[in-house]
Amino acid sequence: MEHIAGVPLPDTTTEEYERVLSAAATAATSLARAEPSKRSHVLRSVADAVDARASELVPLAAADSSLPEGRLRGEVTRTTMQLRMFADVVEEGSWLEAVIDTADPDAQPAPRPDLRRMLVPTGPVAVFGASNFPFAFGLGGGDTASALAAGCPVVAKAHPAQPRLTTAYARAIDEGLRAGGAPDGTFGVVQGTDIGRRLVQDLRITAVGFTGSTAGGRALADLAAARPVPIPFYGEFGSINPVFVTPAAAEERSGTIAGEFLESLLLGAGQFCTKPGLLFVPEQSSIELLVGTAVTDDPFRLLHKGIRQSYFDVSREILEHPDVRPVTASAQADLDDLSVRPVIGVTDARALQQNSRALIKECFGPFGLIVTYTSIAELHATMTVLPGTLTATVHGTDDDPHAAALLNALARCAGRVIWNGWPTGVAVSWAQQHGGPYPATNSVHTSVGPTAIRRFLRPVAYQSVRQEHLPPGLVDANPWGLPRRVNGLLS
Amino acid sequence: MEHIAGVPLPDTTTEEYERVLSAAATAATSLARAEPSKRSHVLRSVADAVDARASELVPLAAADSSLPEGRLRGEVTRTTMQLRMFADVVEEGSWLEAVIDTADPDAQPAPRPDLRRMLVPTGPVAVFGASNFPFAFGLGGGDTASALAAGCPVVAKAHPAQPRLTTAYARAIDEGLRAGGAPDGTFGVVQGTDIGRRLVQDLRITAVGFTGSTAGGRALADLAAARPVPIPFYGEFGSINPVFVTPAAAEERSGTIAGEFLESLLLGAGQFCTKPGLLFVPEQSSIELLVGTAVTDDPFRLLHKGIRQSYFDVSREILEHPDVRPVTASAQADLDDLSVRPVIGVTDARALQQNSRALIKECFGPFGLIVTYTSIAELHATMTVLPGTLTATVHGTDDDPHAAALLNALARCAGRVIWNGWPTGVAVSWAQQHGGPYPATNSVHTSVGPTAIRRFLRPVAYQSVRQEHLPPGLVDANPWGLPRRVNGLLS
Repeated sequence: MEHIAGVPLPDTTTEEYERVLSAAATAATSLARAEPSKRSHVLRSVADAVDARASELVPLAAADSSLPEGRLRGEVTRTTMQLRMFADVVEEGSWLEAVIDTADPDAQPAPRPDLRRMLVPTGPVAVFGASNFPFAFGLGGGDTASALAAGCPVVAKAHPAQPRLTTAYARAIDEGLRAGGAPDGTFGVVQGTDIGRRLVQDLRITAVGFTGSTAGGRALADLAAARPVPIPFYGEFGSINPVFVTPAAAEERSGTIAGEFLESLLLGAGQFCTKPGLLFVPEQSSIELLVGTAVTDDPFRLLHKGIRQSYFDVSREILEHPDVRPVTASAQADLDDLSVRPVIGVTDARALQQNSRALIKECFGPFGLIVTYTSIAELHATMTVLPGTLTATVHGTDDDPHAAALLNALARCAGRVIWNGWPTGVAVSWAQQHGGPYPATNSVHTSVGPTAIRRFLRPVAYQSVRQEHLPPGLVDANPWGLPRRVNGLLS
Repeated sequence: MEHIAGVPLPDTTTEEYERVLSAAATAATSLARAEPSKRSHVLRSVADAVDARASELVPLAAADSSLPEGRLRGEVTRTTMQLRMFADVVEEGSWLEAVIDTADPDAQPAPRPDLRRMLVPTGPVAVFGASNFPFAFGLGGGDTASALAAGCPVVAKAHPAQPRLTTAYARAIDEGLRAGGAPDGTFGVVQGTDIGRRLVQDLRITAVGFTGSTAGGRALADLAAARPVPIPFYGEFGSINPVFVTPAAAEERSGTIAGEFLESLLLGAGQFCTKPGLLFVPEQSSIELLVGTAVTDDPFRLLHKGIRQSYFDVSREILEHPDVRPVTASAQADLDDLSVRPVIGVTDARALQQNSRALIKECFGPFGLIVTYTSIAELHATMTVLPGTLTATVHGTDDDPHAAALLNALARCAGRVIWNGWPTGVAVSWAQQHGGPYPATNSVHTSVGPTAIRRFLRPVAYQSVRQEHLPPGLVDANPWGLPRRVNGLLS
């Protein structure tokens, strides 16, 4: 039994586990056959059901997570808009990557048969949601939306930090699936201490979507890779999200940058995977001072005790390093057992380079590290010790002489490069990329946005297959109206 | 020193290894910046150089592999046509998946910044070629073409079965790269007994393309997954390629099927990953008899002694199974140390189901297993024990009552489903899919055809980045003329 949020989440029994997995395997076949309009209808129906139960779900999520209800209502909107956007994407059909090469008897070096290729669902997908976005990265979040859009059943591992929300959220999703006509077994939830390992190793599971810590995620990724039949593991493991302030930007708008940095850092009590964890500022700038002055002393309630303990451990470890000085001097002792006050430290780029293992660590909660640098060359040298990251940001000026080189260098270690903005806030749109070199993710795909669907698909080619035996997406008449590539040309 | 083909292939020294890897890491940066037309020029230049040296290379490949020169000349054509096709694909530009979402201040639940996303090269790629296609799956084969098209430098592990070809083939590729203006380090070759493991674990390597045996490939895939920073391993490991002959097809054209089966089985001495290893025929058909009568007693020279030994071991193990009878009775004793005669066995579907581990094994060389079945239901039941496979084939008739269900079921375990054809022969075209559920491959991508390029790319999004700092592929003016998705619409 998992118990980290005041209320226990009882373990799924072996019988129930078998029922869920076996139903998912059965559902996979009929879901794979369903035409895009049917899948879209299912996604919209789930969105409607979650919206309809929002006023019941939000207080449960708030009780589980200490997150404010306003923020959670926005998250429900994000979640259901995402489901509806994926429904639109499924209908548009380019995600199926349908390609037709008609037979070419004159092809060199050998005649070519009729070949038609399309993506098909991999089969049941295991989804491990995160605790910091109970809705948008939870049971009905991005991974579930992606898998359902692809035509894959989902078996979600419930997060122990959501004991109140889990059953109600799962019921809302289930209602939507039933109303939309999805087959039994399209969605199931399992919970328990060791059930995640079991799920990743289950031969009926064909792919995994995971959002969480590097330690937990890597352990599961290793299990997925070690299976007799390995499966793709799409993990989002953690990120440091460095922000680089050029000398010209610091000169132009130190106050604005300091204020916006704090706003982004403290959003969601600093419990975002896109939190700007490192802020690089010129040595002579006043940003460190401005941040120190402006930072609030108000406490923030964290998601659960585990995150709070880890916040203390990691922030203390960094702050106690001889090359780090505190910018804040907040007492933590007088707080309740879920709350903390912001902690901000400062070090310099040379120290960061020399102590990268000790100082570059993701720390969930309102903790940030300011890093002063003496030259742009030093900044570039520091980049070589940065790990892969979801985002990297540059604050510069209109005619900044260093902007191009910094942005270019940062694209090598980040999935999203930001100019004069902040990394928190991840729009669900076609161009979104939420992922980056390891440990940000362990894949070459995104976990947010429509292209996330590609993770749960594999290609199948049909050679010389008669029209009546082809999937509808590949027959000449194109009854699904898909964008297709025919004999090399997009149509 | 590796020594399996009569001539040893000397180990790469530590100094040379370091030079190659360090040059590849340096080349990665400038290759990533090169515009598509430049990359296309490099690919065409490599094709020209390999073509120009074909008359020198083919005899060396023949001496290494015992493959006939005519076949090898055709393979050179396939290889250079592939490079030229990839050059066209690179120029067309859709592989970059460029997407632009302009800023939307009214977006819900939050205003959306300008977001632009494109695929960028992962960095240096390790390529492990196969021995059975010295050119098309060798140093300059599909994986190398894919990686260069993506903008990634290649470090190829030389195959010990190609001691004569390796240096000359590498030189031709290098000449083409230089003539095309590629940076130093774009392509390098390393060789040696343990150097493959070292390469896969090298932190400068960002992805691996592998074609070879399940045992060797899986060991390397496990190393790639276990790295501190895991990398994608795109392996093609082996395949059984079942062929199903319906009762109606057997009734209509047993002779043709028997003859074509043998032709496909014995192509390249049975050393194709797409060799039809299992032929399912109705119990009452004459196909088994016709195959037994028509099969040649002529010997075939195999690629190297290792494959010959494995051919004897695996075919004997299967043939000695109590449920298997030989269709051929060929003596092997009088042959030279590279030659073998075809071996064909017969069993029944029930025995295959009950002994799937013992009887379903890839066996390189002219070995095949015929499986008789008594009913279509039995055939479908047998499918559940089949492993993932590159291809699966159905031979039926125009109005065959079983075609639809068989094709549909086989698409679940195969990457390419074939109707009334044979799996050998893999056209390089947009719709090709060479890959399938594990162990056929361990990825959701193809290793043949233009979409193979996707394996060596990762997405990067640019948020609110000024036009002059964006990669040319993402600026409004679209100087590369890419097909792009703008605000959701393909243009």
